[in-house]
Order: sequence, then C-alpha cells, then structure tokens
Amino acid sequence: MDTAFARLPTPPYYAVIFSSQRNGADEAGYAAAAQRMLELAEQQPGYLGAESARGADGFGITVSYWASEEAIAAWRAHAEHAAARAHGRAHWYGRYELRVAKVERAYGHASRE
Amino acid sequence: MDTAFARLPTPPYYAVIFSSQRNGADEAGYAAAAQRMLELAEQQPGYLGAESARGADGFGITVSYWASEEAIAAWRAHAEHAAARAHGRAHWYGRYELRVAKVERAYGHASRE
Repeated sequence: MDTAFARLPTPPYYAVIFSSQRNGADEAGYAAAAQRMLELAEQQPGYLGAESARGADGFGITVSYWASEEAIAAWRAHAEHAAARAHGRAHWYGRYELRVAKVERAYGHASRE
Repeated sequence: MDTAFARLPTPPYYAVIFSSQRNGADEAGYAAAAQRMLELAEQQPGYLGAESARGADGFGITVSYWASEEAIAAWRAHAEHAAARAHGRAHWYGRYELRVAKVERAYGHASRE
C-alpha cells in the first residue's frame, strides 16, 4: 500500500515527529478530528506530506513534513488546529511528545514485484 | 503505557525516521530480528532511544534517536545490522523510506490522572 508513504522532495526540509498514546476515549470524535486536521494541513503553505502509524496498544507516530520552519509556525498558529490540540490534550491523549527536526538526507527502497 | 516513549535529552540530537510497509511474510523471523536489532542498537555508543508503531495494515514508523551523525554512521556500518537490512529488503518489506534529521526542539504533555 504505497499510499501510506509521503511523496517528498529532495532534502532539506523539516519534520514534525508527533508520538502519542491514545487513551481509547471518543474514538469517533478522534478519528473525525484527525481526518479534518490532515485535510486542513494539506491546504497550508509549505505542507509537503505526512505519514502515520498506530498500533493496537494505542501508541502512534505521525510525522508531518514541511518546507520551512515558518510553515510549521503558521500551522501551529492556525486557530482550528490550536483548538483541536487543546481538545486532544484534555480528551484524547494520555501523553504526547513533539519533536521538530531538519531532514538532511533521505533514501529508500521498493521491492520489484 | 509510558514505556513506548523514548527518554531523551534536551535537543539537539539526531533522528532516523524509518517508515516501512511490511509484506506480511515471515512474521516470527521478522519479530525476532526486530527485537535483536533493538537490543543491538541499545548497545551502540550514542544511542539515545527509539519509538515504534505499526498499524494493522502493515505500515509502520520507527524513529531511533542518536547523539551524533557519527553514531548513526557507526550503527549503519555494524555488520549484523547491515546483514539484517539486506535480509529485510529481500524478505520483509514491500517498501521503506529512511530519513535522517537533526532534532532542534522538543516538547510534550502528559495527562495528570
């Protein structure tokens, strides 16, 4: 399922690494908000793509990719995104960690089948 | 389950973001090798921690954290790690992407319960 992979330009670019533990509450509300945030992010200037995985234990990692620090700051300041973050802190996540990083190089491999 | 989170120092440090699509083959062999690689990584100089999540669709993200570029290069050159990577390309992954990034800042949140 190649669609799970982000299509990204050649580095450098920026990554926001968001790891989180879902508390299991309000699955429908969480899923709807996550989808909405993804759609909203895609409309932001400088958004490059995102990849996401969450296991059955509720621990997940989402990495979103951005063209610049300024693009990350603008997305962080977006009012609807800020409201969703506040709701998430109060209702959806037991814990989360967020790390901002500059991607310096990238490589990959795909099987020929 | 706080144990899924890496305990990391204050930035800067480096992240290796590994996203992969498992092909579903050889689950037992893959799980044993993944566990062995984690144990081996933990013994490397400059290893700081790792976080990992994989969904039911087989798409996963593992982020390992390192003190320096040199530590990443040494781990990449480790013979047993190199052999496992080659085996993984041939047998376990439909596709993977690897990105090396410098973490510049980090913050988090934990619910008080």
